[in-house]
Amino acid sequence: MTERVDDRPRAPREPFERTWAALAKIGDRGAEGYHRFAWTPVDLALRGWFQNQAQLRGMSCERDRNGNLWAWWGRPGPGAVVTGSHLDSVPGGGAFDGPLGVVSAFLAVDLLRARGVEPARPIAVVDFADEEGARFGVACVGSRLLTGSLDPEQARGLRDAGGVTLAEAMRGAAADPAAIGRDEQALERVGAFVELHVEQGRGLAGLGAPVGVASAIWPHGRWRYAFHGAADHAGTTRLADRRDPALPFAATVLAAREAARRHGGLATFGRARIEPGATNAVPSRVDAWLDARAPDTATLTAIVDGVTAAARAAAAEHRVRVEVAAESVTPPVEFGGELRDRIRGVLGEVPVLATGAGHDAGVLAAHVPSAMLFVRNPTGVSHSPAEHAETGDCLAGVAALAAVLADLACR
Amino acid sequence: MTERVDDRPRAPREPFERTWAALAKIGDRGAEGYHRFAWTPVDLALRGWFQNQAQLRGMSCERDRNGNLWAWWGRPGPGAVVTGSHLDSVPGGGAFDGPLGVVSAFLAVDLLRARGVEPARPIAVVDFADEEGARFGVACVGSRLLTGSLDPEQARGLRDAGGVTLAEAMRGAAADPAAIGRDEQALERVGAFVELHVEQGRGLAGLGAPVGVASAIWPHGRWRYAFHGAADHAGTTRLADRRDPALPFAATVLAAREAARRHGGLATFGRARIEPGATNAVPSRVDAWLDARAPDTATLTAIVDGVTAAARAAAAEHRVRVEVAAESVTPPVEFGGELRDRIRGVLGEVPVLATGAGHDAGVLAAHVPSAMLFVRNPTGVSHSPAEHAETGDCLAGVAALAAVLADLACR
Repeated sequence: MTERVDDRPRAPREPFERTWAALAKIGDRGAEGYHRFAWTPVDLALRGWFQNQAQLRGMSCERDRNGNLWAWWGRPGPGAVVTGSHLDSVPGGGAFDGPLGVVSAFLAVDLLRARGVEPARPIAVVDFADEEGARFGVACVGSRLLTGSLDPEQARGLRDAGGVTLAEAMRGAAADPAAIGRDEQALERVGAFVELHVEQGRGLAGLGAPVGVASAIWPHGRWRYAFHGAADHAGTTRLADRRDPALPFAATVLAAREAARRHGGLATFGRARIEPGATNAVPSRVDAWLDARAPDTATLTAIVDGVTAAARAAAAEHRVRVEVAAESVTPPVEFGGELRDRIRGVLGEVPVLATGAGHDAGVLAAHVPSAMLFVRNPTGVSHSPAEHAETGDCLAGVAALAAVLADLACR
Repeated sequence: MTERVDDRPRAPREPFERTWAALAKIGDRGAEGYHRFAWTPVDLALRGWFQNQAQLRGMSCERDRNGNLWAWWGRPGPGAVVTGSHLDSVPGGGAFDGPLGVVSAFLAVDLLRARGVEPARPIAVVDFADEEGARFGVACVGSRLLTGSLDPEQARGLRDAGGVTLAEAMRGAAADPAAIGRDEQALERVGAFVELHVEQGRGLAGLGAPVGVASAIWPHGRWRYAFHGAADHAGTTRLADRRDPALPFAATVLAAREAARRHGGLATFGRARIEPGATNAVPSRVDAWLDARAPDTATLTAIVDGVTAAARAAAAEHRVRVEVAAESVTPPVEFGGELRDRIRGVLGEVPVLATGAGHDAGVLAAHVPSAMLFVRNPTGVSHSPAEHAETGDCLAGVAALAAVLADLACR
């Protein structure tokens, strides 16, 4: 069933490898993976790479009010066919999550031009700002601000681990935080958005297909659990006198796994801060972030309710106060049937997959026709230095993206 | 039984409050408590305060090879009666843990001089470097190096959370890391060491006594548990495919409390590092530090063995590798009966207490006659901004310390 894509002429290898190599060095910490966080010097280097790629192709490049970069083939305007992804990473991330979509977008433009394609509509390559939310804790900041689904005042006040606000970080990178917020002008230029992304599971690997199309994104979100206890001396305070927040935190981590298993979803505590963080002190406070996802909203709610009930019970047992706050909750996204059918008409009967991962395409889908292409990930590993995609599959992805863009921009 | 101490003339209030006020500002973060870490600018300010106090009293001041400060009344030499404590703190520490012993030492000198006491032996006030181990993870670095119970090569290589080694930190503060190690010359000058310290429990409060004497320090130590899993995407990796180190870590935190309860000791996880620390990534690794203490060595071993067995079982269940390493283990300290009896002869029948907290006096006790005085802590809270001692009790402590020094230095 996947033979038509597999047989399609792939994009040439040399330009892909050359473009990839220039990008691959930025923010690379070797065995510790990529560290590419919003508005850092590394981010500015990534933006420089993007601008350089646009310039090499004679594409005009602009940064919108929310820090997203746009490179234009043709005059910027309504009805544009937009493709791209993001360049930032999680801490210790892989090379492909985000950058593969941006590199593939530029190479798809090259492929169309080499074939003499003359688009009837403008084509834009986009790099959305701060997709992972690794620094300020909220994902898809650039696309959420653009579409008005993140309050600019709230965004400006977000703080990184060092206490720096997003507003301060933007100013430090010569961007104006006062200008952020819903950008009607930028949004209404987008006729359709197609994001190519490395798959973050083993769906395509299991089906033997290099490229697939997304059907939906699971509802998902981040919840902060703040456990407030009382600092004390670890060597002298009797167990009965303690109000140790590490204990209900630990119970909540175990409860999250159990709730996810019982309800058939995912729940993870990948980030926590223990204060004051001294070996010989009972902690005063633990902040921990739950990432939860499920095939439908009812299941997601059941998981989070289960985790919260366990957190409250364990906190009460240890005379610890717990606060639970939803930091960002994303409803399910169904990628529109019309655009998806059109893409499948171009690519043939490629696999159609749902995913638990959030993407800028999921944010845009509520506003403009949006779709996603996935490229096979042999191990399914992502958000890890071990994330991988075979170059042959990446070249099939570029070819598939080029075919989709040609169809959308020329008909 | 405590009336004799309570009735004893207290040290005058004004000099105590004045000396205390000058010190209290250094490293103070208000509601977040004290942050006074070894070889930081705050530490250098504390050392400046100490040198200034020595100078005000015409006491010669020297820094030994291991960074400990000594202020001398009389010519430095063998048989000296030494008193003091440390000025560094845990993160978010209280005002009294350490500084009370140093301030009381200087004020006891003032009191003896005001009374015209002429010591037959030199008296020294000492500030031991890096007692809490808050920055580099090993406690009592200054006294352990001095006595040869910490390997200098190991000490030089200790790293803080930012990757800075102790050697680099010392060089940054104009101290020579090549010179650290057992200091026979400094050690053989110490005829006896008496450390005054705020009590870190409610023993004296329960007995209605402002001052007590230490009998022993429980055996205690720090163990690092390193859980090695595999980073992955929190939104796409099936539960069955995960090797999430946060799960055995959480199980180990709960097991530690249970083991401490069962065996009648203390066990605490107050510090942990989750890597890479992204909300949307399954962690690759968790490092967590166990602080364990018990009335005797057999009980301590039983607690740590229980925690380690639980860690290994939980790690195996989640296909996570766990490494356990003892970072520092301190055997029980019995403060010598002869010196203790002499102090009780001076102070009367003051309460005698064991403690779970480690101290420089515990390190020195293996080498020279050592003793500790405790000052009442009304709530028992320590290693917290809420740590407190009433000024009246502090003045009783100064008076008691002065009486002990006079007895030791003049007879």
